[in-house]
Amino acid sequence: MKYIFILLISSFLANAQVKTDQLNLMPWPQSINLTQGTFVIGKGFKVNITGNPNSRIFNGATQFLRKLDGRTGLFFNQGFITGLNEFPNAELQINCVQNGKIGLHEDESYRLEIISGKIMINATSDLGALHALETLLQMLQNNSTSYYFPAAVIEDFPRFSWRGLMIDAARHFQPVDVIKRNLDAMAAMKMNVFHWHLVDDQGWRIEMKKHPKLTELASDGNFYTQEEIKNIVKYADQRGIQVVPEIDVPGHGSAILAAYPEIGSKVVMLNVNSGEKEQQFTQVQSYALERNSGIFTPTLDPSNPKTYQLLSEIFDEVCPLFSGKYFHIGGDENEGKDWDSNPKIQEFKKKNKLANNHELQTYFTMQLIPMLKKHNKELMGWEEIMTKNMSKDAIIHSWKGTNEGVATGSSLVNAVKNGYKTVLSNGYYVDLMQGVESHYLNDPMPKNTTLSVEEKARILGGEATMWSELASPMTIDSRIWPRTAAIAERLWSNENVTDLSSLRKRMKTVSFRLEELGITHIRNKAVLFRNISNNQKSEALEDFSNICEPLKIYSRNIDGTEYKTYSPLTLFADVCTPDAIDALDFDAAVNQYLKNKSIENQVLVTDFLKKWINVNSNLMELSTNAPLVQPLLPLSKSLADLSEQLLLMIDKKQSVNPTVLKDLLEQCNSKNHADVELAVYKSLKKLIQA
Amino acid sequence: MKYIFILLISSFLANAQVKTDQLNLMPWPQSINLTQGTFVIGKGFKVNITGNPNSRIFNGATQFLRKLDGRTGLFFNQGFITGLNEFPNAELQINCVQNGKIGLHEDESYRLEIISGKIMINATSDLGALHALETLLQMLQNNSTSYYFPAAVIEDFPRFSWRGLMIDAARHFQPVDVIKRNLDAMAAMKMNVFHWHLVDDQGWRIEMKKHPKLTELASDGNFYTQEEIKNIVKYADQRGIQVVPEIDVPGHGSAILAAYPEIGSKVVMLNVNSGEKEQQFTQVQSYALERNSGIFTPTLDPSNPKTYQLLSEIFDEVCPLFSGKYFHIGGDENEGKDWDSNPKIQEFKKKNKLANNHELQTYFTMQLIPMLKKHNKELMGWEEIMTKNMSKDAIIHSWKGTNEGVATGSSLVNAVKNGYKTVLSNGYYVDLMQGVESHYLNDPMPKNTTLSVEEKARILGGEATMWSELASPMTIDSRIWPRTAAIAERLWSNENVTDLSSLRKRMKTVSFRLEELGITHIRNKAVLFRNISNNQKSEALEDFSNICEPLKIYSRNIDGTEYKTYSPLTLFADVCTPDAIDALDFDAAVNQYLKNKSIENQVLVTDFLKKWINVNSNLMELSTNAPLVQPLLPLSKSLADLSEQLLLMIDKKQSVNPTVLKDLLEQCNSKNHADVELAVYKSLKKLIQA
Repeated sequence: MKYIFILLISSFLANAQVKTDQLNLMPWPQSINLTQGTFVIGKGFKVNITGNPNSRIFNGATQFLRKLDGRTGLFFNQGFITGLNEFPNAELQINCVQNGKIGLHEDESYRLEIISGKIMINATSDLGALHALETLLQMLQNNSTSYYFPAAVIEDFPRFSWRGLMIDAARHFQPVDVIKRNLDAMAAMKMNVFHWHLVDDQGWRIEMKKHPKLTELASDGNFYTQEEIKNIVKYADQRGIQVVPEIDVPGHGSAILAAYPEIGSKVVMLNVNSGEKEQQFTQVQSYALERNSGIFTPTLDPSNPKTYQLLSEIFDEVCPLFSGKYFHIGGDENEGKDWDSNPKIQEFKKKNKLANNHELQTYFTMQLIPMLKKHNKELMGWEEIMTKNMSKDAIIHSWKGTNEGVATGSSLVNAVKNGYKTVLSNGYYVDLMQGVESHYLNDPMPKNTTLSVEEKARILGGEATMWSELASPMTIDSRIWPRTAAIAERLWSNENVTDLSSLRKRMKTVSFRLEELGITHIRNKAVLFRNISNNQKSEALEDFSNICEPLKIYSRNIDGTEYKTYSPLTLFADVCTPDAIDALDFDAAVNQYLKNKSIENQVLVTDFLKKWINVNSNLMELSTNAPLVQPLLPLSKSLADLSEQLLLMIDKKQSVNPTVLKDLLEQCNSKNHADVELAVYKSLKKLIQA
Repeated sequence: MKYIFILLISSFLANAQVKTDQLNLMPWPQSINLTQGTFVIGKGFKVNITGNPNSRIFNGATQFLRKLDGRTGLFFNQGFITGLNEFPNAELQINCVQNGKIGLHEDESYRLEIISGKIMINATSDLGALHALETLLQMLQNNSTSYYFPAAVIEDFPRFSWRGLMIDAARHFQPVDVIKRNLDAMAAMKMNVFHWHLVDDQGWRIEMKKHPKLTELASDGNFYTQEEIKNIVKYADQRGIQVVPEIDVPGHGSAILAAYPEIGSKVVMLNVNSGEKEQQFTQVQSYALERNSGIFTPTLDPSNPKTYQLLSEIFDEVCPLFSGKYFHIGGDENEGKDWDSNPKIQEFKKKNKLANNHELQTYFTMQLIPMLKKHNKELMGWEEIMTKNMSKDAIIHSWKGTNEGVATGSSLVNAVKNGYKTVLSNGYYVDLMQGVESHYLNDPMPKNTTLSVEEKARILGGEATMWSELASPMTIDSRIWPRTAAIAERLWSNENVTDLSSLRKRMKTVSFRLEELGITHIRNKAVLFRNISNNQKSEALEDFSNICEPLKIYSRNIDGTEYKTYSPLTLFADVCTPDAIDALDFDAAVNQYLKNKSIENQVLVTDFLKKWINVNSNLMELSTNAPLVQPLLPLSKSLADLSEQLLLMIDKKQSVNPTVLKDLLEQCNSKNHADVELAVYKSLKKLIQA
């Protein structure tokens, strides 16, 4: 009987008209109209491609088939798509007018029309068609027995041309499979620039045939071969993604200088007494690969011709590996300490009438432009490269903000006003473990500044940056995703798409679907829990992680020496993520309760409090056979103690000592345990102060 | 108060003496003596290496440090070990007398001594030292606050020299990261031969510079570059593992012949009428890459000189990629149908006095020996290569058994009696989804045959084989592990180590620890459940998977066409594994209850029955929004219906209709749903018949 009832429900569902706000599209398209009807997917589903596309659409459409296959379990007959017009009567028709070229300001628009029995994708090029296929996958619906697409017309194009993700492969090396799966996730979110931070104090990550010392002495064996790099560039190209490599100079130079100390700026003065007079010599300083995190002094010597010779040879070898137009040369955080203490460099500054280290660095950077031009590449650099003398062809990468004591994105406005193209990363530092809201509402287009049309046009877009001091191959996906999906939406969708509750709702499905691309942000949590709990059942750990967030904005690993670049990151803080789910739900419950203290609303709150008392007791039990659980106990105990007091107050209507309450609350605000903070602190405070 | 109690327990635990049967070592060492005391691990823990080892021990010891780091969260100061005697006072001292060479009959023994404050590893070579480090990791214990090793002396060496795992990368292509993580897992289980099945009807997986057609026309773009292959060979070497490549000829030839049809055996006869007399011509048959599973006819033409020319050129290019001594040429399952129907080949047979197709195949295989000898490689092949004329240098790979209508491993005895070296795979086909017991109790040394010492010595060991018709990169780990760990123990440990309950107990920990090597057998289950359940909470799915096993021994995908080589494998059957855990527990409960029908024992049984009634109802609910759950419902309903009857019988002491009971039981034995079978059927039958 129950079974019959279920079948009745399912046929009802089959006919239900999907509403726009039920769709979990991300980034949200520019225009969508749902019409009547559905396209039901069957085993005979086929794809046909016409027009004049780049062959990347064959791979893209094949991958689309495989994903749809895996979701629906239908096992389509069509295997690999390798040419034009293979199945003229196929239900899904893709037409591309022209061959898409990866680069700035390419037409990425598409039109997707779904009707009963037919799906049509029309795009200027394969780049737009790939985006259309991602949208189509996101349109997938189901009832109890089958999968279908709702009938719709979608017209879509990106707001910004540069929608990037940077991955730092220098601090914690990130192997090829990490890069590839993140390229897949980027493509799913319609992102089109992969900025690959390949060199920093902690490592040189590029195989060099003419300068093997760079990997022999400065990589610990962790580097990409040139074949791997070319392979990744091709993999990215097939997904419509440009790769922008970065070699960070002249600062962040420990790795280069570990291999080539002779081009370093640091000198050691030696006083040698030869008979009567004392003579001063300078001696080359030796450098070591950096194992800690922070800003370090090793800097290339801009006065040494050998510096430019080496860099020129490096670019000659590295540039041809990349097909894109841009090469990022870093340029950030050079404090110039070793320049100040080197007499030869001081003399060079004077001779060349360079007023300060900034001008000296500009001099240095300007030497790189022809080296890159030779390979048809334009220079891109962090905002420090910008001065009046810098070439206007350069792209200024705006990264500083309140953390660095300047107004958010101030360099962005300066750059466009001075005629530079620019890309925003301030506000998109996903490694800082901030909630999705801050990134999502951070618009590359400044709100309170009047810019001309031309100036606005120079704001190319933005880039999420994933620095890897505290991210291993095991954890990096959970640091990037799903928050970067929200940044992707900011960069693609209309500026008015800013509804946070819609974002959060859609992100749940988007996050789940990233799994099919191999993104490990969900699955690896369970792996780490098993390690922390010593393979004991660990529901309490998971519950606790749902209200804990890792310490934010450089407050974890403060001196930069606690975690080394070779440290595995397997602690509770490495499992926790921003936007702790129960913390969000608890905050909603508290708000609702404070608005209306009905019994129903009260139970919403007290259920959480009771849960946390249990969590603490379960964690204590778990800890008897799991040393890695011990550091959590002070925090879980504070929360349990406070919860008990609050239950007395709310459930039992007893009066509780306000000082005790306040003390317990502040203990819940501690940042001293397990490198995490309780994300429910503010909601608890509201509850107590109400 | 509770907290204090816990602390008391933990200090008690700290002093508890570990007993041998508490250790979760696998493979079990030849000799172990636990002594008094413990070695407590601290942040300053360091490793020092002395003697004359191969540099692979530096990488091995560094990896050891990282794993211990990740488990303990101590973050050791020591980073990378790159040379001898870096820390003479280190607590862990490793001494290797000589440089280990990868190959047959190498001394892999080691001695591991743990005392308070000191650990000493002594080995003939780095190969033994690597094994010792794996044992040491398995010795890790903890109390509530710290990690330690119990004091012990372990002396250990392998029983067999050949302890292999074969992975089929032809049917479903397995990318580099799949291979690498499985090499890590093999090393953890002290296995030393990776047999890489690189070519079959479904694909050619080796980049060929002189014969690019092989990958262009026969790989769908899924192949290993030569650099990747060399990289994997090096990766394996660093872990003490020899790589044995396989190019399967002359049968299983669809891929080679898709690129080079001119060396195929199949001919098409054309009758051409020219005036009065009719002339017969033969025409080259075209071949296509195979998409299905099974045994196919495409076979190389052994009478065609071009066949040998091509193979010779192929070996010239492929052999240098591998450093090991053995090259596997397949040779299996050639039915010779296309030979029989080709007049030219029949003529060739007559001319060369080859009595039958077996002799013709031997003729073919003998031509390959000098091609391999040229590169200092010996030939290995599946048992079909064995005849009186075959070179005694060849290794015979014994694979047939009851499934093929012959006595288990009969070719193994024939081989050693005829003077051949041999490796056993019959009984180790992990892709057949049989329980661990059958593999574990399958000993390479035949029980009922008298062999001389020399004959016994020719039994080199065994190899687990993982054919990939039904295994994708997503699921293959769960098909290989943890059962292959039991095979590893069979091949390493004393023949008397056969206690199944000890094996099952130790396998739980071994299985968990394989996760730290990246093995995905546990984590990917959850990923697939999320896909099947449409991201709904899926405890019922997991519960049901704990009593279901995939159809065994070629009974899934019977006609070989249901699943193509490009089909993603994302169904419930792909999540389920042999040795379904609740089925084992239920069987134990039934046995206990049948022995003694106490209330306690009754509850053990009825709790399962109640659980399955709930599972069915939850699965039905889940299915209303998850089409992929639908196929499970008939089976879960049968089990729930039977459980309800059994509850009436056992709990309520009501009499139930035996015919109804029998019918329901037989429905629980159905193999017609979702490609799985209920692993509790036999236990239910026992319960009913009792």
